[in-house]
Amino acid sequence: MTATEPHVDDAPELKQLYTDFEAEHLNPLWTQLGDLMPMTPTSRAVPFVWKWSTLYPLAQRAGDLVPVGRGGERRAIALANPGLGGVPYVTPTLWAAIQYLGPKEVAPEHRHAQNAFRFVVEGQGVWTVVNGDPVAMRRGDFLLTPGWHFHGHHNETDQPMAWIDGLDIPFVHYTDTGFFEFGSENVTDDSTPDVSRSERLWAHPGLRPLVGLDAKTSSPIAAYRWEHTDAALREQLALEDEGYAATTEPGHAAVRYTNPTTGGDVMPTIRAEFHRLRAGARTRPRRDVGSTVYQVFDGTGRFVLGGEARTVSKGDMIVVPSWTEWSIEADTEFDLFAFSDAPIVERLHFDRTFISEGA
Amino acid sequence: MTATEPHVDDAPELKQLYTDFEAEHLNPLWTQLGDLMPMTPTSRAVPFVWKWSTLYPLAQRAGDLVPVGRGGERRAIALANPGLGGVPYVTPTLWAAIQYLGPKEVAPEHRHAQNAFRFVVEGQGVWTVVNGDPVAMRRGDFLLTPGWHFHGHHNETDQPMAWIDGLDIPFVHYTDTGFFEFGSENVTDDSTPDVSRSERLWAHPGLRPLVGLDAKTSSPIAAYRWEHTDAALREQLALEDEGYAATTEPGHAAVRYTNPTTGGDVMPTIRAEFHRLRAGARTRPRRDVGSTVYQVFDGTGRFVLGGEARTVSKGDMIVVPSWTEWSIEADTEFDLFAFSDAPIVERLHFDRTFISEGA
Amino acid sequence: MTATEPHVDDAPELKQLYTDFEAEHLNPLWTQLGDLMPMTPTSRAVPFVWKWSTLYPLAQRAGDLVPVGRGGERRAIALANPGLGGVPYVTPTLWAAIQYLGPKEVAPEHRHAQNAFRFVVEGQGVWTVVNGDPVAMRRGDFLLTPGWHFHGHHNETDQPMAWIDGLDIPFVHYTDTGFFEFGSENVTDDSTPDVSRSERLWAHPGLRPLVGLDAKTSSPIAAYRWEHTDAALREQLALEDEGYAATTEPGHAAVRYTNPTTGGDVMPTIRAEFHRLRAGARTRPRRDVGSTVYQVFDGTGRFVLGGEARTVSKGDMIVVPSWTEWSIEADTEFDLFAFSDAPIVERLHFDRTFISEGA
Amino acid sequence: MTATEPHVDDAPELKQLYTDFEAEHLNPLWTQLGDLMPMTPTSRAVPFVWKWSTLYPLAQRAGDLVPVGRGGERRAIALANPGLGGVPYVTPTLWAAIQYLGPKEVAPEHRHAQNAFRFVVEGQGVWTVVNGDPVAMRRGDFLLTPGWHFHGHHNETDQPMAWIDGLDIPFVHYTDTGFFEFGSENVTDDSTPDVSRSERLWAHPGLRPLVGLDAKTSSPIAAYRWEHTDAALREQLALEDEGYAATTEPGHAAVRYTNPTTGGDVMPTIRAEFHRLRAGARTRPRRDVGSTVYQVFDGTGRFVLGGEARTVSKGDMIVVPSWTEWSIEADTEFDLFAFSDAPIVERLHFDRTFISEGA
Repeated sequence: MTATEPHVDDAPELKQLYTDFEAEHLNPLWTQLGDLMPMTPTSRAVPFVWKWSTLYPLAQRAGDLVPVGRGGERRAIALANPGLGGVPYVTPTLWAAIQYLGPKEVAPEHRHAQNAFRFVVEGQGVWTVVNGDPVAMRRGDFLLTPGWHFHGHHNETDQPMAWIDGLDIPFVHYTDTGFFEFGSENVTDDSTPDVSRSERLWAHPGLRPLVGLDAKTSSPIAAYRWEHTDAALREQLALEDEGYAATTEPGHAAVRYTNPTTGGDVMPTIRAEFHRLRAGARTRPRRDVGSTVYQVFDGTGRFVLGGEARTVSKGDMIVVPSWTEWSIEADTEFDLFAFSDAPIVERLHFDRTFISEGA
Repeated sequence: MTATEPHVDDAPELKQLYTDFEAEHLNPLWTQLGDLMPMTPTSRAVPFVWKWSTLYPLAQRAGDLVPVGRGGERRAIALANPGLGGVPYVTPTLWAAIQYLGPKEVAPEHRHAQNAFRFVVEGQGVWTVVNGDPVAMRRGDFLLTPGWHFHGHHNETDQPMAWIDGLDIPFVHYTDTGFFEFGSENVTDDSTPDVSRSERLWAHPGLRPLVGLDAKTSSPIAAYRWEHTDAALREQLALEDEGYAATTEPGHAAVRYTNPTTGGDVMPTIRAEFHRLRAGARTRPRRDVGSTVYQVFDGTGRFVLGGEARTVSKGDMIVVPSWTEWSIEADTEFDLFAFSDAPIVERLHFDRTFISEGA
Repeated sequence: MTATEPHVDDAPELKQLYTDFEAEHLNPLWTQLGDLMPMTPTSRAVPFVWKWSTLYPLAQRAGDLVPVGRGGERRAIALANPGLGGVPYVTPTLWAAIQYLGPKEVAPEHRHAQNAFRFVVEGQGVWTVVNGDPVAMRRGDFLLTPGWHFHGHHNETDQPMAWIDGLDIPFVHYTDTGFFEFGSENVTDDSTPDVSRSERLWAHPGLRPLVGLDAKTSSPIAAYRWEHTDAALREQLALEDEGYAATTEPGHAAVRYTNPTTGGDVMPTIRAEFHRLRAGARTRPRRDVGSTVYQVFDGTGRFVLGGEARTVSKGDMIVVPSWTEWSIEADTEFDLFAFSDAPIVERLHFDRTFISEGA
Repeated sequence: MTATEPHVDDAPELKQLYTDFEAEHLNPLWTQLGDLMPMTPTSRAVPFVWKWSTLYPLAQRAGDLVPVGRGGERRAIALANPGLGGVPYVTPTLWAAIQYLGPKEVAPEHRHAQNAFRFVVEGQGVWTVVNGDPVAMRRGDFLLTPGWHFHGHHNETDQPMAWIDGLDIPFVHYTDTGFFEFGSENVTDDSTPDVSRSERLWAHPGLRPLVGLDAKTSSPIAAYRWEHTDAALREQLALEDEGYAATTEPGHAAVRYTNPTTGGDVMPTIRAEFHRLRAGARTRPRRDVGSTVYQVFDGTGRFVLGGEARTVSKGDMIVVPSWTEWSIEADTEFDLFAFSDAPIVERLHFDRTFISEGA
């Protein structure tokens, strides 16, 4: 017996009842319980891999054909999960896109309730200007534009640059919680400092300025620089070598990007982490409630998703829908950026994890 | 200029690019920004009213034609918002249904990650059994079955009984966070006490037992009784008459049901309140992020939704989608039960309200 | 070897060094470590019992001889722990006093940073007016005047009335955190309602008004009435009889008074509870960090403090200093009001408990 | 009229009453209200300055005369506030001492409930070993040993080293909340790494390891290094020069040391900060509830305490009791380490500040 055992039959009275339900905008539970309330999460989203070798050339072609400017706002090409029927959503809650900015181009300023970040897998030369603060973008950097912060981008070089954007667009769209406002056509500060003012004020380990002592909804750090991420991961593996508990699993170092005013996630809806596996390391197979997107930053390895292995390398993007069994295997040292909707899941107390006994 | 200004034209290279995007499961932002990220929430859900005089007879007919039992689980008929294309969702995040249990019928036990409550607009004689604790259901009572609590219902009388169910089914379905488990075919305790054990332990004003001192995810009170709700509202209006600040607006008393271990909402995803307006009172027109469903408990009045007035009376159910302008006008003393997705909106920091200057 | 092993000797250079230390307002650690940092809390306060049969007649004599009014402010006689050298402190952090108000007397209004409560072991007829809200005092009631709330008392009857006051005066004095301000010479509202406005607004189980939705530092309930406390305890014992987990230990029911806006303690520095033991019940011997004061509300029994049993009955007050081993034995049904400095201890993470294995 | 207006007279009955009070360990409020509950905090502690030129030579003499080892545990010489009657407390809640460790000496391991830190105004060559993790001590570093962490110190060099210790010894003693336990006679790890394991795991800006995701009572960072503190202050002043809001007041940069798992203070009872004033800058006169101790790290200036100016320079220690009016004036660039009992005051909601209108 299952939750979807049919209760419908062909009795004319029943047919009439269902017709009357429909006329009155009503809908019985008993004919669809198993679909509405499955035994475990049964995402329409599917595990999938997008290759950087596909993404980047398409973004380049868009760079040649499509201008960037007010109205379209961004030359961003979204990953559309094949299970979701063509909408530009990588998972039901998350948006992921490759954004491409040609030489000297400017993406105008705007702001929105949606929370956004950028992660740079290669290149440099673009500054994103967040509430008037110019933030340099370089390989390995993780950059924030939390909800309702004005932001625009400008490329100061003669080379194009591409990076990934992550947002909670699907979640905000679904829950009817979004607002949008146009800002300046040009960035409000076109200077090109190496570090943003937000970092100068906030990115000192364990220290905070005495201005603005309240806990903040989102992290005040606009850029998490690669040198710090890399150093933190390197130290975890070194500590493991020295015999101390520092890694998540054997050969698996990981850091979470945090809001220094709370110790929690960088933004209310999005978690971001960076993982490094030693060559040969494997993570233990597990399932989590909530969806995650990875981008390979360096190295080569495999994602085993729902029992199927997929080999990936630099720039490739991988989506792991909710409750999909997943594990990772590293062929070389394997560096992975990851983001997920875990703060939504945890703040509403839906989090669960199943870790396989054996491996 | 709008956010949807067209960037698409008929150049063959561009057409080919869009074709190639689709083949690679990609989707450009610039052709659909205005739909994805509108200026303000633009819900597909519409304001709507279901009349009790329609709901109840249809539930009765279902009672005659459809058995209740394992598989279909519940004789619940969901309100399907006309804007949402036929799915049984009253708003994108919320489920609301009329549930009907005939004389001596039993709805078997199960549990699910989804959070649920019941509210009783008329009748009595059913007990809902929550994690083994029998909870009597009577007019005006608000009853909880928080996520992953086993629950079943049984009607001890020779009369049918109907009530409304509210859940976060759509939200849980959308975010792929749900789990479901069958329990006992019969209720695990068929005794019929006037008050539940949870109330005997927890429903004393300002007091808590010394067992279980941690903050709890959901309220441990299984039933919020009408006599308390009514008394609290009556006192607010009396205090207003005596010249003290106690009401939300002139002539508008309101209480929120709370989790006594935190002072916050009863469950992580659902807020519930009860409002009482004096005859002739009007609420100030406002818009809120998040969706709300009302049921008229007593009296007659009007909901003005997006500028259109709808007259409602006892048992009628009204849905107010996100960012819809709403106000309420009372012809008689007007009692309203309300539930909403405000905890989702607030915990993720998307809350905003716009209150009209004039009224 | 102990922590106080002598390091001091009679060498003249050392004597000179200690003399020089003193001249420069310096003080070596090594000569006094064991006193400053003992192995476990070693309170100067001692376990002690004050008999109501002593307290009340002395308060009566004070009522005959000492007027109440501006300047002295209150006819309150403090319990002075015999270990604390004559200061009016029942423990290093807590103040406890019997307050006595003669027929038709008025204690003028004032306010202070110190948090205060009253508990009524017998009598009635006095109203305490808290920020303008008249609060009737009756046997079994627990009444709050949180920090910086104006308050005065007036006796409307021809009979005197006495009750106990509890405050954090010693803690505030020690930490230099107190402020004081005189208010009206007479109470600002001399009406005599049965229930206070604060109760009408806030003392409904699981409900809160929609005015003032923020979490509050202290409970907004001015009076916790005996009928609720008694009902909650009675239900716990009944549930125990029915086989359910509801009591703290076998035969030991207990409730904590809470702030309904947080679920936590009523005030930032003071915890208050009520305990009921069945005749013949005994609590398990334990030690806690922090100090507690009890008043017997009804019945007869024994406090075993540091191994010594003391028999107590109605009105008697018992102090349990930090880390004293304590247990309670009930001869009859035994009702006890208790207050402690546990919120200080817990908020600063000094809490520890040691429960004896055997009993 | 004052709060201490006499209510006592010489009537024999009253004298007898007071005698009887005393015999029964009772103490009337009305004769002492003004002392117990003054209008504003009236600390027995006084503002005071200890000169480094006095402290260091005395510590050196102690180094020659007093061994360090089990029993006395530490060669620490406490600042005894002249107002506190000779006890080794710098304020009612705080302990401050100069600790001195000769060449090759070892201070044995122990642990205690008291929270401790060290700050290094000069020298290097000592490692403090915290729960087995060796932590190098160098000029400008701020080092933590939170409650119940084992710790010992060893000097690896041929030079003595001195630093300051800060603890909550008086508060813990007063509230009877302390525990103490001896550990290893020698440090459990005598290696001498440049950075501790705790820093390698935790001191990366905005990043946290995925091991140990819970919020921690105290900061997991054992050492806050001078180079970060200095950089953060330098940037604040540079941002001020560039026209951005970054400083606390004009010419006044300041950082707070934080617990990265919460964004709050490093330990439950002690706040620590570092302040830098430009030459010529002055802070606005103010009063705060709670007591603070400063040590001059570099430069020369004046503390104006209760209207009296005191000139101070490198190493000097200054105490500001609760509610003392204070301001600081910098002659040169002026670097100040500060610690206070603010977490106690704020967690218990006694915080208040008075800032003078003019300056």
